[in-house]
Amino acid sequence: MRLKVDVLPAEELVYPDVVLVVDVIRSTTTAVCLLEAGAEALYWVPSLEAARAFKDADVLLAGEVGGLKPPGFDLGNSPREALEAPVGGKTVVMSTTNGTKAAHVAARTAKHVLLASLFNAHAAARLARELATEEVAILCAGKEGRVGLDDLYTAGVLAEYLGLLGEVEPEDGARIALSMKRAYQDPLEALSLSAAAQALKAVGLEADVPFCAQVARSAVVPLLTGRVGEALIFKKAHPGQAG
Amino acid sequence: MRLKVDVLPAEELVYPDVVLVVDVIRSTTTAVCLLEAGAEALYWVPSLEAARAFKDADVLLAGEVGGLKPPGFDLGNSPREALEAPVGGKTVVMSTTNGTKAAHVAARTAKHVLLASLFNAHAAARLARELATEEVAILCAGKEGRVGLDDLYTAGVLAEYLGLLGEVEPEDGARIALSMKRAYQDPLEALSLSAAAQALKAVGLEADVPFCAQVARSAVVPLLTGRVGEALIFKKAHPGQAG
Repeated sequence: MRLKVDVLPAEELVYPDVVLVVDVIRSTTTAVCLLEAGAEALYWVPSLEAARAFKDADVLLAGEVGGLKPPGFDLGNSPREALEAPVGGKTVVMSTTNGTKAAHVAARTAKHVLLASLFNAHAAARLARELATEEVAILCAGKEGRVGLDDLYTAGVLAEYLGLLGEVEPEDGARIALSMKRAYQDPLEALSLSAAAQALKAVGLEADVPFCAQVARSAVVPLLTGRVGEALIFKKAHPGQAG
Repeated sequence: MRLKVDVLPAEELVYPDVVLVVDVIRSTTTAVCLLEAGAEALYWVPSLEAARAFKDADVLLAGEVGGLKPPGFDLGNSPREALEAPVGGKTVVMSTTNGTKAAHVAARTAKHVLLASLFNAHAAARLARELATEEVAILCAGKEGRVGLDDLYTAGVLAEYLGLLGEVEPEDGARIALSMKRAYQDPLEALSLSAAAQALKAVGLEADVPFCAQVARSAVVPLLTGRVGEALIFKKAHPGQAG
């Protein structure tokens, strides 16, 4: 099994098999928490405007502007809030920037697109392994076109676990991610140093960082199941259900 | 002094100050060696065709196709060969792919663009520090749009040395590069694992890898001094000459 890690989304990337999309602070962590809280589906859209276009439908809107809940939205992008939100049976339209861009790059060519975070790291790695026939790729969202320490560390955790599940052939990006995993004593140290964490601190949301640093708390994996216009539809999946 | 590392070139990257471009296997190492061997100037062009357009001028052509010297060219892209080549006083037109793309991205906005490798790592870091007023950025060329272990390791060596020269504020990419530097016992270990090294091995040029893994053997730094059409002109500079 080939194991690839791409540190940033790019138009030219081609994925023949399974992709784990990582935006650990915060959109892929929040996505896991919304499905944990009972949401029926997540629609990932690339802008606030695209989210507002769904406003008349029976949906909840989630998103952020500068880290905070946008006017007229039901939810922000905090995974702590998402886990407690009254989203049972609902569709949640999530406006994300870096995460959605990465997911769209993956969705263009991949057979399976999964959302991964530390929170669901082991489940996401297991499901990826079950679905893959030749390659598991991990695509880090980064932050406005620049590599994120938080995402690459998370990719390292996923890569390490994928290596425990069976033999892998790591390429350059996977070796870099594995080195990042080993370079830090614990996930919170790595995440706290990232630009994404610093940006949350600046708006008083630093409590989301230790939340995002929790490893393997959820067995839920958001799996791409289709599209509505420019929205990517993710629904709940678990390892052990594949095939 | 801010210290940034970009793991891949991208159109949206903006550089306010100094950029060290790294394509350690092999184009930035070869560039240093050609100037060490006495070349007057290097013209970096993005294709073999662009190089051949200079054929009637009094220049030498250097480049590669699949690692090997292209038909009609005077030199390949081997730094071992470059160091011994009869290039004294000559202009050498170098056709590179990943290295040139990265250098062009840097040149669009940066005040100063330098070519860095392990071979000239300390000189390049010193000159960057001398030229910079607010930021040193290290831009890794990667390999066909994918991050290179060899380049990121080299960025870590440069970043560590920049940190010894004075206080730096590392962002996410710089922290990742520094972790890579510390993850490997020696440069040859890191470089040998890279896809770039594997590609050289496949064409029998693996002896270039230990050559590229030599640290601080040269005090020559190729510095961008101008353009001719789409060619970037690099000439020899040394630390201690700045200002």
